[in-house]
Amino acid sequence: MEADEPPTTGAKTVQDKNPATVTVIGLGAMGRPIAAELVKAGHPTTVWNRSPGRAGDLVALGAAEADSPAAAVAASEVVLVAVLDYASVHEVLDPVAGQLAGKALVNLTTGTPEQARRTAAWAAEHGIGYLDGAMMAVPAMIGRPEAKLLYSGSTEVFDRYRPVLDLLAESTFYGPDAGLASLYDLALLSGMYAMFFGFQHGAAMVATAGVSATEFAGMATSWLSAVMGAIHDEAAVIDGGNYRIDAQDANFTKSALDVIVRASRDAGIGVDVVAPMQELLARQIAAGHAEEAATRTYEEIRHPR
Amino acid sequence: MEADEPPTTGAKTVQDKNPATVTVIGLGAMGRPIAAELVKAGHPTTVWNRSPGRAGDLVALGAAEADSPAAAVAASEVVLVAVLDYASVHEVLDPVAGQLAGKALVNLTTGTPEQARRTAAWAAEHGIGYLDGAMMAVPAMIGRPEAKLLYSGSTEVFDRYRPVLDLLAESTFYGPDAGLASLYDLALLSGMYAMFFGFQHGAAMVATAGVSATEFAGMATSWLSAVMGAIHDEAAVIDGGNYRIDAQDANFTKSALDVIVRASRDAGIGVDVVAPMQELLARQIAAGHAEEAATRTYEEIRHPR
Ligand SMILES: NC(=O)c1ccc[n+]([C@@H]2O[C@H](COP(=O)([O-])OP(=O)(O)OC[C@H]3O[C@@H](n4cnc5c(N)ncnc54)[C@H](OP(=O)(O)O)[C@@H]3O)[C@@H](O)[C@H]2O)c1
Ligand SMILES: NC(=O)c1ccc[n+]([C@@H]2O[C@H](COP(=O)([O-])OP(=O)(O)OC[C@H]3O[C@@H](n4cnc5c(N)ncnc54)[C@H](OP(=O)(O)O)[C@@H]3O)[C@@H](O)[C@H]2O)c1
Repeated sequence: MEADEPPTTGAKTVQDKNPATVTVIGLGAMGRPIAAELVKAGHPTTVWNRSPGRAGDLVALGAAEADSPAAAVAASEVVLVAVLDYASVHEVLDPVAGQLAGKALVNLTTGTPEQARRTAAWAAEHGIGYLDGAMMAVPAMIGRPEAKLLYSGSTEVFDRYRPVLDLLAESTFYGPDAGLASLYDLALLSGMYAMFFGFQHGAAMVATAGVSATEFAGMATSWLSAVMGAIHDEAAVIDGGNYRIDAQDANFTKSALDVIVRASRDAGIGVDVVAPMQELLARQIAAGHAEEAATRTYEEIRHPR
Repeated sequence: MEADEPPTTGAKTVQDKNPATVTVIGLGAMGRPIAAELVKAGHPTTVWNRSPGRAGDLVALGAAEADSPAAAVAASEVVLVAVLDYASVHEVLDPVAGQLAGKALVNLTTGTPEQARRTAAWAAEHGIGYLDGAMMAVPAMIGRPEAKLLYSGSTEVFDRYRPVLDLLAESTFYGPDAGLASLYDLALLSGMYAMFFGFQHGAAMVATAGVSATEFAGMATSWLSAVMGAIHDEAAVIDGGNYRIDAQDANFTKSALDVIVRASRDAGIGVDVVAPMQELLARQIAAGHAEEAATRTYEEIRHPR
């Protein structure tokens, strides 16, 4: 954006005047809708996929198909990558690191914070502007406001290409540590999967009395919404660092989990989801913290013995 | 309620005319606010607690303190019990089963569905009307609309004393199987604890980058609210019984959990909460269902090998 331009409120104005040239590498479930959004917004878009035959619809929309990673990278100022994993990222990009120099690389592939940091270091060595992204969306959400994309790494790349990124999802930038987007993403996914598996456990319990999962889902979602506020209370206790407070203590919560585990066994269902929580409380109690807030299990997770 | 009375919409009218006599056994954190609500609503209320000295405030409010379980039971038509566990219930009530005959017993003590069913059978033998209750509330919620109390067992006891029960919480009746209230309660609590432990795991992950639990709680509660609707989708898949559908498959979710587990280990935090979910998916995959919906882990829980 030039300094003498009037401020713009959205991406469209900037793109209409001078749309960035974009390459998308990886045309899987995610790469295809990503490329489609970019083409539709008027960006000159080049695509490449390891296996041929996945670019047809995109070419029909107006994308150019490159015949090699080198050609794909050469075609654009910004390269978005969404492949299986970081090993695939490096398989494709290591041989073309030279061509990427001076360009912006936005890696949307899922990986660990460590993998993101190592790839950022690799990019820095080669003079590549590196932005790491974590996609909190399923393919059908791309381009819609429900989709969230978390970024960290190069502030310059984020600021410069934000109008492009905003076409895909709601974008949030977490600063220069390239591992942070992944860390936040994985932390939020942990919470989500735990909630889903907790639902599955509850559904299995009530199923033993002939209750449908759908009926239980209605009850469970109201209940989880009602108690969700307690997450803020837990957070305040964790940040306060003092677990010797007037709150449900480890003994109390352990008893509740003992009953849940016993009832699950009585009903012949697995305790995979519930026994580990009981075990964390047992560890807290064994370590002498029976009458401290049950929330102290956080410390058992944060600092495992 | 007599047949020639006009229908009443709330509890007050009935109670004001002819308030039921009520006994509360167990004056712990729950029993005390329960008894207080009953006294305040005008019910002649008798209380008893194993250890002396816990009835003072209630007596000041207008409750009568009995000097034995037998006297406590003799004083009222309906007896509410909230003690530590089912062993305590039977320790107190077995010797006075004869006096309880013909009366209503509402057992609010937490236990397994099997314990509730066995206590219902014991009550039936002695001609006691038995209602089992599960309290989805903390003590401060008693008497407030947020509190939920689930009941199952004697329909007659529930219908007759509903105005009394409605003073304590929002009441729901699940039918004559005395185990159901507990089953629903434990199923919902499983979901709640899983959500809380998932939050603790996520908070531990982001803490490794210096992010406070409070900051993460804000993100986590928005995210969990946003994805909660997927619980209904999971339920529909479970009830449909067909996991060979176009949805995130076990391979996909297993990869996500592999990354979470690896990132957690890299960051030096425990994997107690996340490894069991990875393991459930690994079992589904090992059993040949890699490309079926990840939601099929429900079957691994419901029918453990
Ligand atoms: N799908 C989702 O809901 C979702 C959500 C959030 C994040 N993600 C992440 O987004 C990334 C892409 O996911 P997706 O759903 O698009 O996956 P996908 O549909 O399985 O597609 C995988 C893509 O990676 C390519 N690939 C695999 N190995 C490769 C290699 N060694 N070299 C070059 N290309 C290779 C595949 O190319 P071929 O066609 O040649 O096999 C394909 O284009 C993954 O990291 C995933 O975890 C996905
Ligand atoms: N507190 C909650 O947030 C909550 C929520 C839902 C359900 N519940 C359930 O409600 C029940 C009562 O909980 P609470 O919080 O009130 O517990 P509490 O504060 O620990 O009180 C326990 C009560 O049980 C009595 N008791 C223990 N062992 C006994 C025995 N062998 N014989 C006779 N009385 C005995 C105690 O009497 P002494 O004074 O003589 O020790 C005390 O009155 C439990 O089943 C609990 O799981 C509690």
